[in-house]
Amino acid sequence: MLEPRVLDEVPTPAAVVDLARMRANLDRMAGYAAQQSLALRPHTKTHKSPELAREQLQRGAAGVTVATIREAEVMASVCHDILLAYPPVGPGKVERLLALPAHVRITVALDSREALEMIARDAARAGHEVGVLIELDLGMHRVGVQDAAAAVALARSAEDLEGVAYRGVTFYPGHVREPVDQQAPALARLDEDLARFIEALDREGLAPGTVSGGSTPTAFASHTVGGLTEIRPGTYIFNDRTTAETGACAWEDCAYTVLATVVSTAVRGQAVVDAGSKALTREELRAAGGGFGALADRREVTVKGLSEEHGLLDLTSTDWRPRIGERVRIVPNHVCVSVNLHDRVRGVEGDEVVTGWSVAARGWAP
Amino acid sequence: MLEPRVLDEVPTPAAVVDLARMRANLDRMAGYAAQQSLALRPHTKTHKSPELAREQLQRGAAGVTVATIREAEVMASVCHDILLAYPPVGPGKVERLLALPAHVRITVALDSREALEMIARDAARAGHEVGVLIELDLGMHRVGVQDAAAAVALARSAEDLEGVAYRGVTFYPGHVREPVDQQAPALARLDEDLARFIEALDREGLAPGTVSGGSTPTAFASHTVGGLTEIRPGTYIFNDRTTAETGACAWEDCAYTVLATVVSTAVRGQAVVDAGSKALTREELRAAGGGFGALADRREVTVKGLSEEHGLLDLTSTDWRPRIGERVRIVPNHVCVSVNLHDRVRGVEGDEVVTGWSVAARGWAP
Repeated sequence: MLEPRVLDEVPTPAAVVDLARMRANLDRMAGYAAQQSLALRPHTKTHKSPELAREQLQRGAAGVTVATIREAEVMASVCHDILLAYPPVGPGKVERLLALPAHVRITVALDSREALEMIARDAARAGHEVGVLIELDLGMHRVGVQDAAAAVALARSAEDLEGVAYRGVTFYPGHVREPVDQQAPALARLDEDLARFIEALDREGLAPGTVSGGSTPTAFASHTVGGLTEIRPGTYIFNDRTTAETGACAWEDCAYTVLATVVSTAVRGQAVVDAGSKALTREELRAAGGGFGALADRREVTVKGLSEEHGLLDLTSTDWRPRIGERVRIVPNHVCVSVNLHDRVRGVEGDEVVTGWSVAARGWAP
Repeated sequence: MLEPRVLDEVPTPAAVVDLARMRANLDRMAGYAAQQSLALRPHTKTHKSPELAREQLQRGAAGVTVATIREAEVMASVCHDILLAYPPVGPGKVERLLALPAHVRITVALDSREALEMIARDAARAGHEVGVLIELDLGMHRVGVQDAAAAVALARSAEDLEGVAYRGVTFYPGHVREPVDQQAPALARLDEDLARFIEALDREGLAPGTVSGGSTPTAFASHTVGGLTEIRPGTYIFNDRTTAETGACAWEDCAYTVLATVVSTAVRGQAVVDAGSKALTREELRAAGGGFGALADRREVTVKGLSEEHGLLDLTSTDWRPRIGERVRIVPNHVCVSVNLHDRVRGVEGDEVVTGWSVAARGWAP
């Protein structure tokens, strides 16, 4: 099949990125990080594509962040400094990590002595050295050591054990979900908690070389957190409805949409498109408006319901009445999980399809 | 990499099917359909694998149901009677439908004159004939004609137009979500509504040859709906937490699990596993218990939270305290969307991995 040259000919559903918007998003974050002297280590879970990681590295990213061994394997083709922000626990994981090309500098985030010892043992046996960041829980309560004593003990072990090298601390401020103009109190608490950890490590001669934090919603407030050396935003390359609703980007900064076709208008007050939960995912919006996405050019029209291949557009707040066959572009609530449902993403300039790339790091196996 | 022979060696996260349970689920539904003289046309969106469609056909299925052209293309390798329960509206869709092997009998469900005319025009031009079922809305309010007059008009057009053949009606009772022992009132309403449509079509000489309905939760009550000739359950091959919670299967009938490894126990009251929303999906349970899944062998332990690669097991209702590296099997809330996240599924007998198959019909493009 010939690759369509214009958006009108692209079969639906399809993942589409507005390249001008994407480049502006990349430039904005790179500019902020440079201005604040923060290392930028973008999380590639959002796009899972080496082509886009290269765009980030060309703009000065210090390396990339990955969540899975598969992502590390794929990103190793373009990047020689990779942070696996996830403990590699389970059959084959450390082996695959150690099998990455020798020129790749690997760092791993972890919060347990068990994970540390597993890596150290295999790395030492293979004559490798894996960097370690101690994962801190600064309020998200997902993973991370709970107190300074635990952080010190784990950092000490990382310093002492053969096969691993203690490189600092990391945290993920995923619990800070307030609109950007209301984040200051949560970030002040985080700043205090982080300072306590850093002071304790300093006292023990374990001053962290790297202090890595930063989500997309909090990225542009990173300079208010003391001691931070690095940020790891992911979503910012595309942005999504959640990012826009929190005010961390404008609606017009949403670069990724799912192109869909209206297939039914039989039920009053709604139109059904061919992008359902297998194209958008059922991720709720934690903000006014609800639904599972909204039309890029008619933000008041939301996806009020999803089946696997059906998206139900709510027409009660618009006088737009779509025809069968009409096409729409939907901004999903959470872009990372939508991208992950597509084999391929198309890059457009206006209505022209100028490029495309595969979502190469999907799944977990080679 | 050598394919692991035992479950303990399988890298995580991984999709795993207990073959004995799957076969029992297949036998049970095939037995019910045969006993009630209902055609069984399983919806293959659940497994997306021709290997499993073959298992269904070998047990007497009259054909298969698909939701996408891609699924039709993949299933055409094993099945010559395919219902596309979705209007093929959008660039390339009718062309791809007409390009299926000539021996495949194709039927399409639709609810609009626009969709009908698009298919008829292209099919007539190609010298093909595509069967048509008129989609009825019997209470789900997703798609489907709203009244008998609309059904008659559309059926008449399907009868008259060249390139298409009117074959009957279809509906999806996806709104009947009550526990099975409380479904009778909803099914009685549906039965009345369906009878009204059928009577109107009969009066106009458009008696439907096929009356196709049936979801997994309502499947074993299909004999209480008058006029039904065919059922299209999908989930029943694997079942899931939702099916079990509605009483449409026993917990021990859940054949599909996501195998995962405990990677963190740092936060009190929970354990974190390496199966997140990219392995399970964020589908809420419409029943007591909440969460996004539960452990197969400890049903009281639910997945209380999800990040993309993190699943948070709630340990507050158990005295089980998992170790880092321990492995669990999670029954997802909605199996169809979890399967769709995996490249490959492994079939096990007890703890032995005896086979595997690819989720071949994922995505929308060839």
